Amino acid sequence: MPGVSILLFDIFGTVVDWHGSIVREVANAYPQVDADAFARAWRAGYQPAMQRVRSGEQGWTRIDELHRGILDELLPRFGLAQLGEAERAHLNRVWHRLDPWPDSVAGLTRLKRRFTICTLSNGNLGLLTNMAKRAGLPWDCVLSAEIFRAYKPDPRAYLGAVGVFDAAPAEVMLVAAHQDDLAAARACGLATAYIERPLEFGAQHLKDVSPDPANTWHARDLLHLADQLGC
Amino acid sequence: MPGVSILLFDIFGTVVDWHGSIVREVANAYPQVDADAFARAWRAGYQPAMQRVRSGEQGWTRIDELHRGILDELLPRFGLAQLGEAERAHLNRVWHRLDPWPDSVAGLTRLKRRFTICTLSNGNLGLLTNMAKRAGLPWDCVLSAEIFRAYKPDPRAYLGAVGVFDAAPAEVMLVAAHQDDLAAARACGLATAYIERPLEFGAQHLKDVSPDPANTWHARDLLHLADQLGC
Repeated sequence: MPGVSILLFDIFGTVVDWHGSIVREVANAYPQVDADAFARAWRAGYQPAMQRVRSGEQGWTRIDELHRGILDELLPRFGLAQLGEAERAHLNRVWHRLDPWPDSVAGLTRLKRRFTICTLSNGNLGLLTNMAKRAGLPWDCVLSAEIFRAYKPDPRAYLGAVGVFDAAPAEVMLVAAHQDDLAAARACGLATAYIERPLEFGAQHLKDVSPDPANTWHARDLLHLADQLGC
Repeated sequence: MPGVSILLFDIFGTVVDWHGSIVREVANAYPQVDADAFARAWRAGYQPAMQRVRSGEQGWTRIDELHRGILDELLPRFGLAQLGEAERAHLNRVWHRLDPWPDSVAGLTRLKRRFTICTLSNGNLGLLTNMAKRAGLPWDCVLSAEIFRAYKPDPRAYLGAVGVFDAAPAEVMLVAAHQDDLAAARACGLATAYIERPLEFGAQHLKDVSPDPANTWHARDLLHLADQLGC
């Protein structure tokens, strides 16, 4: 049996702190808004929007456009109906400007020494590239649901990434802070590593980060994963 | 008019020295073979093989498979018909192990400071990722004809890359050592930079590197391009 040589990383919540980044930007630009509620409401629209694409109700649509549709619905509820096109477009690009968790760049840099490290995100290629350039995330390759036209947890996303490298599924490991993403990858034959991100939804909404013994690895953060993998 | 912010790079011949790399590996492994003729014959099969895909005669097929088909035809002509599966598979992967030109890593590192730098190659994603990891090519994003299922000079390859970044064609520049590639990009509205690679086919087959005034820039190598672009 060949060992794992390729690591695929979920991004939103696993490598970058979407909640904290959006809270900081919204609180700064629109101090009258409840930035925590705003960030969580925006993210809450994400799975239903993708589900419309997964089900075929809506044709292939990138996350940038899905984020924008959710934002447009959200603004009146938060007293921001007056925002014009330029402000909306700028705010929507906050997803390209998310900050990494404090361990992400150092952890990825260590993991990159022994593994091929790639994104496997539902975020679109342009978003992931702009994010990586700004944050210094040292990917070997940027892979996205956009390439396979299938949003995780659709098996085509995981198996598409495996196929890019002509690899066996067992040579590839998904690294993610979400058990449902990991379970779907495991069903495709991939190894899995769970990363605890208790603050994903902010300090006031601590996330359950209990281990699931079905995962190959369980790590506090990416440095702890690098420790365990001997990098 | 917005300026150029994204540079797309042709790879084979422009960033890496396919001829020299294949000659070195073949001469070492099979000293009885005319390695220069072998390398040029392998590359000569490349455009006809892609043309069968472009024309629809053959369904979408990655470069790894096209290279392998050409190789299998070539081996008997060079007295290597006896090579087994493992040796053929290893030799075919030489395209993942091509060495960069001496200026490539330093030039890309400088250009990356001011621009988003991406591959735009007919090579497949896995090939380009393995090559970059081995050679230290610091791409922001690995883009390939494989994503758009269209081989250059098909306009869908150039316009697909422009679309990834929601950019205007004039914000994107193709950097290549081949005038036909640049002409096709220019027809799509992209800026173009020609890189002289007189040794692409080896010192015994010097290439014409005359300037074409239709290109936006003309440079001896990637360091000279970085000089001209103020990086």
